Amino acid sequence: MSTTKRIKKIQARLRRKKIDAILISQPHNRRYLSGYTATDHDIGESSGSLLIPARKNPLLLTDFRFQIQAERETKEMRVLLYPKGLQALLKELLPDLGISSLAFESHYTLHNVAEKLQTMCSKLSISLHPTYGIVEKMRTIKNKKEIEKTRSSVLLNEQVFQTVYKTIVPGQTEIDIALALESTMRRRSAEAPSFESIVATGERSALPHAVPGPVKIEKHKPLMIDMGLILDGYCSDMTRTFTLGKASKKYLEIHRLVRKAQLAGIQKIRAGVTAAAVDKAARRVISDAGYGKFFGHALGHGVGLAVHEEPRLSSRNRKQLKAGMIVTVEPGIYLPGWGGIRLENMVVVREDGCEILNNDTTWLDI
Amino acid sequence: MSTTKRIKKIQARLRRKKIDAILISQPHNRRYLSGYTATDHDIGESSGSLLIPARKNPLLLTDFRFQIQAERETKEMRVLLYPKGLQALLKELLPDLGISSLAFESHYTLHNVAEKLQTMCSKLSISLHPTYGIVEKMRTIKNKKEIEKTRSSVLLNEQVFQTVYKTIVPGQTEIDIALALESTMRRRSAEAPSFESIVATGERSALPHAVPGPVKIEKHKPLMIDMGLILDGYCSDMTRTFTLGKASKKYLEIHRLVRKAQLAGIQKIRAGVTAAAVDKAARRVISDAGYGKFFGHALGHGVGLAVHEEPRLSSRNRKQLKAGMIVTVEPGIYLPGWGGIRLENMVVVREDGCEILNNDTTWLDI
Repeated sequence: MSTTKRIKKIQARLRRKKIDAILISQPHNRRYLSGYTATDHDIGESSGSLLIPARKNPLLLTDFRFQIQAERETKEMRVLLYPKGLQALLKELLPDLGISSLAFESHYTLHNVAEKLQTMCSKLSISLHPTYGIVEKMRTIKNKKEIEKTRSSVLLNEQVFQTVYKTIVPGQTEIDIALALESTMRRRSAEAPSFESIVATGERSALPHAVPGPVKIEKHKPLMIDMGLILDGYCSDMTRTFTLGKASKKYLEIHRLVRKAQLAGIQKIRAGVTAAAVDKAARRVISDAGYGKFFGHALGHGVGLAVHEEPRLSSRNRKQLKAGMIVTVEPGIYLPGWGGIRLENMVVVREDGCEILNNDTTWLDI
Repeated sequence: MSTTKRIKKIQARLRRKKIDAILISQPHNRRYLSGYTATDHDIGESSGSLLIPARKNPLLLTDFRFQIQAERETKEMRVLLYPKGLQALLKELLPDLGISSLAFESHYTLHNVAEKLQTMCSKLSISLHPTYGIVEKMRTIKNKKEIEKTRSSVLLNEQVFQTVYKTIVPGQTEIDIALALESTMRRRSAEAPSFESIVATGERSALPHAVPGPVKIEKHKPLMIDMGLILDGYCSDMTRTFTLGKASKKYLEIHRLVRKAQLAGIQKIRAGVTAAAVDKAARRVISDAGYGKFFGHALGHGVGLAVHEEPRLSSRNRKQLKAGMIVTVEPGIYLPGWGGIRLENMVVVREDGCEILNNDTTWLDI
């Protein structure tokens, strides 16, 4: 689906709901609908918003700093600047466009910004409608082009992993490895890492979100690498855990258990199955072996323009998976004081099962 | 001011306003008040919230993934986990603590989250009070310890710049230089870059927020490097622009003009002067020379735990500067098709003037 088709779909929805326009500020949604690739430094420092009227051409509203980029990247879309801020521009623009009802993204608008928007709209007799996740829902189902882009992202991520994996030796620090990963990503023309790489050794691998530190890699201890990159907008995300030198009996036992849980999850995935059922299938393997309380997070998450997106593969998500969704399958067991093992692959949901996007087999079936 | 004293200050304010507790979720505010250093992957994926009752000990609420880190980093603060999410925990906790009025951060709470919080509070007969920037305002005035930490951050940032500056040669790409900066930062034990380094060559330097690309550095053209790092929580931010080989007459003219504007801004800074007056003093130098419309951003911004914080040195900010504030002074001239020149230093506002934190003199007075 091209950006034009996506915009048309949003416009059709607006007309059905009898709303005159929607303001899209979430950076991935903005990119999905316009091709404009700028990210936000943070939610309080926006790189722009799309104003999509139900029956007129969409506009990209941004500031001076992003003008050149915005004009280059958006096709057939007028770029308007707001030297005095977005609200000042909207105050003139909305009446000019004859807009008397406006939707906004409730999940990417700060409470104080929404309050000001409400005050402005009240003065202009415009009704304001919070929406939640409309574009995110569209984004969960990937078309062929998006699946191919994700496949390329996964492939490049694996190549980066394999390149760096070969160079790892005891005595290097977590930071050394993280830097090697990130510079290899950039040199091979990834846009950016999709998140800060996790490199965690020994008992530090029991912290599921460890930040790489100046800690030396030791032999025979778990070494967890969780990494991803962005290529042409699409994210990859992969975790491998292994040891340098011979693995202990305990390591092998837990590693094999995690892999068994991962395979149980993957085997359950197909269109029509609930996310919770997939989580349950993997979790049962770990619980049955007595490690249930050491697997404290959800089994996986959607991946696309964002590295974490819908659907979550969690025990609380009763929604059915659909063909074209891309999700991670990443069970883990974390033993405080000993370390953690997590294995993560990405799969595309199909009508009759799923397709694993990963080819890397490093330390999977040991 | 220790975290304990800061908490007491917040509690005193709550009692004055007759509010029973405040929920603090903004990551820098959370760190400022507790010492807990986790960052948020994004605003929708919180690493935790502080619940500060007016008359009881504060609590850190987080999830499984951050438990070990939270317990290690916070002193005399109970850590509670929310396996079913923050709101589910608050629903039990608030009545238990006898809280009947709750403040929250309107500027770091999503509209849809605030709506849910409102629904929950209504059911529990708790009044909900949006607040704006209470902790941020405290953070604008740095104490001696914070100024020293910032000084160390600026010093390390300059050392990194100087190390990499010496290695720059024509033919390298923007990405090569950006990677060298970031890996040097990490190896010298910066926590992280304070923002993604900007390395922009030739006409690309006219984009104030250029992302480093696979573009080769050429002789005689402007090369802009805008970089910063985080050391012990505190940010630095510096921009230098220069050319490899001889600079053109035009380059020298514009560079000297930008430097003159920077010095005019710095000379204006002292406690009691408005932010707008400082911006104006620098801007006038550029406008008088006929380049006014090519300086499209504000003169500077506060720096502390966040790389962009209050006060903004902009023509619209009529507030007075106060002693202990730390701000950047960074005028720039951006000529489309030719390139841009920006120079940025950081200063501490003093009663009788300001103290420049930078020592690096590379290509300042040429």
